Amino acid sequence: MGDRNSITSTAPGQTGDSLNPGSPVALDASKLKITLAQTLKPLQPIETLRFGQTFSDHMVVATHDPEKGWSAPELKPYGPITLDPQCSCFQYGGNVFEGMKAYLGPDGKARLFRPDMNMRRLEKSCARLALPPIDGDAVLELIKRLVDVDKRWIPKESGYSLYIRPTVIGTRPGLGLTPSDHAMLYVIASPTGPYFAKPISLLAVSENVRAWPGGTGGHKVASNYSPGFLPQRTAVEKGYDQILWLFGDDRRVTEAGVMNFFVVVKRDDEDGVDLITAPLDGTILPGVTRASCLALASDPEFHQEISMRLHPQEMVYTMSDLAKWSSEGKLLEALAIGTVAIVGPCDRIGYEGKDIVIPGDGLGPILDIQEGRTEWKGWGVVCA
Amino acid sequence: MGDRNSITSTAPGQTGDSLNPGSPVALDASKLKITLAQTLKPLQPIETLRFGQTFSDHMVVATHDPEKGWSAPELKPYGPITLDPQCSCFQYGGNVFEGMKAYLGPDGKARLFRPDMNMRRLEKSCARLALPPIDGDAVLELIKRLVDVDKRWIPKESGYSLYIRPTVIGTRPGLGLTPSDHAMLYVIASPTGPYFAKPISLLAVSENVRAWPGGTGGHKVASNYSPGFLPQRTAVEKGYDQILWLFGDDRRVTEAGVMNFFVVVKRDDEDGVDLITAPLDGTILPGVTRASCLALASDPEFHQEISMRLHPQEMVYTMSDLAKWSSEGKLLEALAIGTVAIVGPCDRIGYEGKDIVIPGDGLGPILDIQEGRTEWKGWGVVCA
Repeated sequence: MGDRNSITSTAPGQTGDSLNPGSPVALDASKLKITLAQTLKPLQPIETLRFGQTFSDHMVVATHDPEKGWSAPELKPYGPITLDPQCSCFQYGGNVFEGMKAYLGPDGKARLFRPDMNMRRLEKSCARLALPPIDGDAVLELIKRLVDVDKRWIPKESGYSLYIRPTVIGTRPGLGLTPSDHAMLYVIASPTGPYFAKPISLLAVSENVRAWPGGTGGHKVASNYSPGFLPQRTAVEKGYDQILWLFGDDRRVTEAGVMNFFVVVKRDDEDGVDLITAPLDGTILPGVTRASCLALASDPEFHQEISMRLHPQEMVYTMSDLAKWSSEGKLLEALAIGTVAIVGPCDRIGYEGKDIVIPGDGLGPILDIQEGRTEWKGWGVVCA
Repeated sequence: MGDRNSITSTAPGQTGDSLNPGSPVALDASKLKITLAQTLKPLQPIETLRFGQTFSDHMVVATHDPEKGWSAPELKPYGPITLDPQCSCFQYGGNVFEGMKAYLGPDGKARLFRPDMNMRRLEKSCARLALPPIDGDAVLELIKRLVDVDKRWIPKESGYSLYIRPTVIGTRPGLGLTPSDHAMLYVIASPTGPYFAKPISLLAVSENVRAWPGGTGGHKVASNYSPGFLPQRTAVEKGYDQILWLFGDDRRVTEAGVMNFFVVVKRDDEDGVDLITAPLDGTILPGVTRASCLALASDPEFHQEISMRLHPQEMVYTMSDLAKWSSEGKLLEALAIGTVAIVGPCDRIGYEGKDIVIPGDGLGPILDIQEGRTEWKGWGVVCA
């Protein structure tokens, strides 16, 4: 990952690049500089928390330039960032992010949920937008330090956590249409609680599409999100909470709002239920909660734990399938799945002027693992 | 467009919103505050200019918040902007921009080329991303003032101009997935010259897709651009300058890099030539230069001027069509069309391991209008 000493060994007037061609400095968590806030903000009562509105005392920042590579990261008081208006992040939208949560366990320790999966996805998102390569393991070390320093911001109550938002933005100055060889990593943290207070309703939409083959829908890039704002506003005006994104002439079911989407369907052979979700064909975000639900559903140990047989199915399915399963009384649950919502039940899907009504409620076991009440195969990673 | 006095008539402690519900203040160019730079930067020799690397002395900035509406705009020295890291523009990519050029005419006046078209498109781009509404006519007034103040930055030489980049970024603080009701407009300006020194080569690509029906390809939004950086890098590694973006199983020809794409094809009836480009089906940017080429091509006055019959055709055409026209000797020109490149000839298209070679060179009349040598139906708009 490059010679980590090349900056310090560079004489004035020389660039790291000329001394060390082709291998700029990798992100190095051991070089972290820490500047703590002089005064700490008061904690906010949890009942007043709204998602992503309140931020902890500190943030982590590191910058990349093509000659020096990644700077020594800094942990410092949360505050604004200053950029040139010509930067790539404003002009061409080359930003990526991750969403993770730190939970406080019964042992008083802070835990991240399968953070290695987020870090691998962050690396892939940067690669997809041709941003400078970033070492996810180093980012994870920085996140653990931030969670540890700001641990008082993790609410103790079940369902609450400290939401972590690692972000990489393209900071190349200049309007040329070329990959951003300058970048900034920053990590901010926001205390958060249950996202949906009750089951949500979805409006199935095909006139707008979230993602397509050969696009970026399978990566966590900023530009996947804002094109959904207008259709989302329209869905709310029509009386629905979120969009169920369809794709193609056959109206395949893909994602719900910014979440993966699952349905639980009774099997014809009466051997438990199918847990069905769209396959990772490049239009579906490879969600950590999605992967975890599929892994639990395919695990005999877990079947024993919940005394039920689950059959995970990653398959193409359409609105016609949903309508058929519903009319046959086989559609037991519909679930919006993601880091923020965890597992959120959907009770109604609007499609072609009618509603498909769905019984059922969410699954609990994921949260038990996240909050450290259940230890499951190392998925809960203690921060410090 | 709202009560323009609502801010000034608001008593301390009251918000514009409570006095004036539902009608925040519109952008008002007459409220422009001007702060000139204390020292002016030296002009750069034109032969050293690279696109979008050098900026003029000033910029225009205005901000929007949901209660007060648009602030009084400021014309001030070019400089950095400071934002909260939680802002929508970093997290969800809700940014839009325009590209325009100011030319110096033989009369010494600065001219913008059909700027009303850019302003209508800017309004539509903001609407597509659910950004606050913006009055393009007010933006145009601000642009004219900026061009006038920074007029010394317009190179006199033919083919050179001052490139204007109006940008609107979503500045809503907070991670909630909701439209950005805060925004910043800024306009920056960069002296620029001919973009392509020689005819360009294109690699036809179908494994990545620029735009999709129901997406944002028909709007000038930041997020259309960064997903193309990686495929573009791959095209260059394979020895081509830019990508020719295809769409669908039938390999329809859509755009070239970030430009519209035209081919000139000899007609079977020998009545001049067809000027063919893909239709505006939502996947094609409605380019100002594109519309101008089509308008000239359908104008009998223009046919007389160039002594040639042109037949504009907005139609679906595929790589098979291109290959057939080429083998029949009918493919006379291929042109990448845009504000930056103006009309740039393409001499080679790589497809399925072979090259389609194209004779011909670019069209000149557009530049004559832009630089004020030809007056044509009010398309050249004088700035001051």
